[in-house]
Amino acid sequence: MIISTIGIIGSGNLGTRIGLQAALSGYHVQVYDIQEISLKKSLSTMKKLLAKMAREELINAQTAQKAFERISFTKDLKKALTKTDLISESVTEDLTIKTEVWRKIGRLAPEHTIFTTNTSYLLPSQFSEVSGRPEKFCAFHFHDVFHSRVVDIMPHQGTSLEVVNLLEDIGRKLNQIPILVKKEHSGYIFNTLLIAWIDAAGRLLTGEIAEVEAIDKSWMINFNMPAGPFGILDNVGLDTAWHITSSRRNPSSRAFAALLKTYVDQGNLGTKSGEGFYKYPNPSYKHQDFLK
Amino acid sequence: MIISTIGIIGSGNLGTRIGLQAALSGYHVQVYDIQEISLKKSLSTMKKLLAKMAREELINAQTAQKAFERISFTKDLKKALTKTDLISESVTEDLTIKTEVWRKIGRLAPEHTIFTTNTSYLLPSQFSEVSGRPEKFCAFHFHDVFHSRVVDIMPHQGTSLEVVNLLEDIGRKLNQIPILVKKEHSGYIFNTLLIAWIDAAGRLLTGEIAEVEAIDKSWMINFNMPAGPFGILDNVGLDTAWHITSSRRNPSSRAFAALLKTYVDQGNLGTKSGEGFYKYPNPSYKHQDFLK
Repeated sequence: MIISTIGIIGSGNLGTRIGLQAALSGYHVQVYDIQEISLKKSLSTMKKLLAKMAREELINAQTAQKAFERISFTKDLKKALTKTDLISESVTEDLTIKTEVWRKIGRLAPEHTIFTTNTSYLLPSQFSEVSGRPEKFCAFHFHDVFHSRVVDIMPHQGTSLEVVNLLEDIGRKLNQIPILVKKEHSGYIFNTLLIAWIDAAGRLLTGEIAEVEAIDKSWMINFNMPAGPFGILDNVGLDTAWHITSSRRNPSSRAFAALLKTYVDQGNLGTKSGEGFYKYPNPSYKHQDFLK
Repeated sequence: MIISTIGIIGSGNLGTRIGLQAALSGYHVQVYDIQEISLKKSLSTMKKLLAKMAREELINAQTAQKAFERISFTKDLKKALTKTDLISESVTEDLTIKTEVWRKIGRLAPEHTIFTTNTSYLLPSQFSEVSGRPEKFCAFHFHDVFHSRVVDIMPHQGTSLEVVNLLEDIGRKLNQIPILVKKEHSGYIFNTLLIAWIDAAGRLLTGEIAEVEAIDKSWMINFNMPAGPFGILDNVGLDTAWHITSSRRNPSSRAFAALLKTYVDQGNLGTKSGEGFYKYPNPSYKHQDFLK
């Protein structure tokens, strides 16, 4: 099966990046969003990213121009889906919204089109049936596209092997390292490891075993890493961290979620707000004498 | 209080390194072990480490010679304890053995001597009482001394604040970064984070969610690290990993412990035996194309 046109459903942060990489990889790209403003922002983000790549000499002006010409934007879902061979959905992480979107896509997309969702924590089986073609449905989950070049391929039980193999190939063409998640698992691999690690750090803090800086130092020195769990949480955003942690049921996660909530309520969201576990732009963990 | 002589009880891998660093930091060092062969090995390891540091121009020949002259070795516990101002105990990680050793030390050591244990998973309160001076008793836990230069200071409830402050100072003099663990916690900070992370990786593997290489790749790419959980486990040693994991009670840790046991039973202990999750000396995760 030849894939030449990719439909991007939802033009947020990740949808924009997936679309741009697809165009750079030679695919025709149709970007859809329900909001005009989101499409405009997507277009301007793409331009900025292309300009940055050109400055860094990763691509030349002609490549940038050609990629850009392969992309079209529309608020008309039916138009967006015409001629698509593969769909990458990155709409809001909400089961009701995703279910509704996939019901519509299932009705409007050409019969041969492969369906993929970029969901972070939901499972493909939760909306594969409403799409009307579960065998062509698979999670195809990007991390950041240009920096963390990983794409998780996570089939549900009904996904055909042919689709899994095809996505592995497309993943490489999109300049990603494909990672096969053999069975459905919320959070895929990286987030599962990350959350277990963050949970343990949260337990040490809320259990008053150690302070933020002591916990981060222990990790940074032993693994020679530029940040520990709390430095990383500040980068993730404490609102996002709270959102993820608060959905967990065990008592220690709940205690940590409650602590994160006090930061969020005070507007301390981490790096982006200027304060979180550390103060920015010069957090102590980046000081030269932090590991002395 | 002035510390000039440090007693090292147990001359294994860590005892040897702590003793050597103490001598390099200007302390007199008395190394004790129950076995003559362990003392001989300790002496030869110290010579090798000093020669290596001299080759790497970290120290000069005179410094090495002077440090070496500050160290004495003995099988006589009473002799080892004479004049010690601080004791660092690194005997076998076994509650019965440590209890017996601390009972003896308590009887033989000078009255002013500070007692520290380098235990990995036990708690200082488990043998502070038998030592006869709980207020002078604290965990002082080294990681590797020369590479991971972290020392955990973990008091039990009865440890005096004076001792905690003194150990912070001694830790710095021993060229370590002191990390305060405010309350007793098995595994301190780093191992708590590490085990949570390894446990999550084990669950992904035994739950057949993903393969060893996929799990390691996900972590390595996202965090730009030279190894993932299974590469690190191979370095730790699968026998040690099994030993730690098998003491845990939750079902997923038990499943992973059972898997580790199959490796250990086949003599596949990781890097040191030539095979573990990867094959050595050229494991696939170190290949140039692993992250492609």
